[in-house]
Amino acid sequence: MIRIGHAWDTHKLVEGRKLILGGIEVNYPLGLLGHSDADVVLHAVAESLLGSLALGDLGTFYPDNSDKTLNMDSKIILRECYKRVLDLGYHLNNLDLTIYSQNVRIAPIRESIQESIAKILNVDKNIVSIKATTWEKMGFVGEGLALACECVCLVEQ
Amino acid sequence: MIRIGHAWDTHKLVEGRKLILGGIEVNYPLGLLGHSDADVVLHAVAESLLGSLALGDLGTFYPDNSDKTLNMDSKIILRECYKRVLDLGYHLNNLDLTIYSQNVRIAPIRESIQESIAKILNVDKNIVSIKATTWEKMGFVGEGLALACECVCLVEQ
Amino acid sequence: MIRIGHAWDTHKLVEGRKLILGGIEVNYPLGLLGHSDADVVLHAVAESLLGSLALGDLGTFYPDNSDKTLNMDSKIILRECYKRVLDLGYHLNNLDLTIYSQNVRIAPIRESIQESIAKILNVDKNIVSIKATTWEKMGFVGEGLALACECVCLVEQ
Repeated sequence: MIRIGHAWDTHKLVEGRKLILGGIEVNYPLGLLGHSDADVVLHAVAESLLGSLALGDLGTFYPDNSDKTLNMDSKIILRECYKRVLDLGYHLNNLDLTIYSQNVRIAPIRESIQESIAKILNVDKNIVSIKATTWEKMGFVGEGLALACECVCLVEQ
Repeated sequence: MIRIGHAWDTHKLVEGRKLILGGIEVNYPLGLLGHSDADVVLHAVAESLLGSLALGDLGTFYPDNSDKTLNMDSKIILRECYKRVLDLGYHLNNLDLTIYSQNVRIAPIRESIQESIAKILNVDKNIVSIKATTWEKMGFVGEGLALACECVCLVEQ
Repeated sequence: MIRIGHAWDTHKLVEGRKLILGGIEVNYPLGLLGHSDADVVLHAVAESLLGSLALGDLGTFYPDNSDKTLNMDSKIILRECYKRVLDLGYHLNNLDLTIYSQNVRIAPIRESIQESIAKILNVDKNIVSIKATTWEKMGFVGEGLALACECVCLVEQ
């Protein structure tokens, strides 16, 4: 049995927040706004895993009006979501994600993010694909107001 | 043989239309604008099924300048599209969809939409994943002007 | 072994450029702006293939500040990316892509693009799905400022 998952997430870039992407801290004057640490990359991965097994979405498990999730480390969110997959007898076959960013340069940190996600999931980094593209200066990502991330995955029993 | 499909659709929210999402009527002051009932959720599911077998897109089968499709119930569109898949000897393995909505709250109707789609396709609801996320008040979805929906699926012979 | 890939790309529509989509020249007063020929369709296909095997993104192989890639024919990019997949013992199972376009009408050229991509990859056109949709006159695609393309694929060993 093999199943497909997909997720898309976005968070605003604002002053006064650390920028955490794929579980690593990025040196940048703005950070992502959110109830948790707003790691848009790990959120997309975690939600695609939930989606692959029709378990609900991130809001189902991590409501953004709860004290428990305030400033929560998204590495914990991702680990918990993947544990739900493993507990059902499935494991990650591979994932492919794209980070949408206009001004935060992803190329220099692409491999660090790949290794970080592989480590969080405890999988071979060869099954974790990280890509990046801009919105060519258009739309909320292109105007530098936000980052977004999209992830597809296959899980297998 | 297994094949992948994907689709993305959007419709404007306007006054004077019923809001139909995933085949169910939602109590909301605005509805989706379109030639058919504009059910953005069922359109994404139906088109991802067509795409999985390279059958064309919704416009190929349901042109928006035809009397036949005016105010058409999208449940019929989805049933017909899935019949094309079944007729070729394939069936749905699983699908994962995301509803992009800023102001229409999806969480309270998430499970109803899941059951509705499973019923239309006559499949187990466990292979129908419904998720929702906002655009964080940015872009045409974030400004509440429209809803969008994205769906991925696997079909198997 | 089967693996999933995904990519999304956009380019601005501007005066003074030929419009190349899926490897074919389209008769239209505007063309896509980019360092290469800016064929947004072939870029999405090529990058989804790279993503499926975690090989990096288009920027990894075709930096947009290099003389080598200036005005480059994207058919070469796609052929080279697919060769990387084949060299690793994988081949395309199927792909499903959506062209996001408000004013450039895709329906009349949908099958030509399908045949063009199948020919570039040297695969059966039955595993190459081409779809199109508008953004309902919203956002940068809906305002006619740009085209975008999204592609999912499965590759198999």
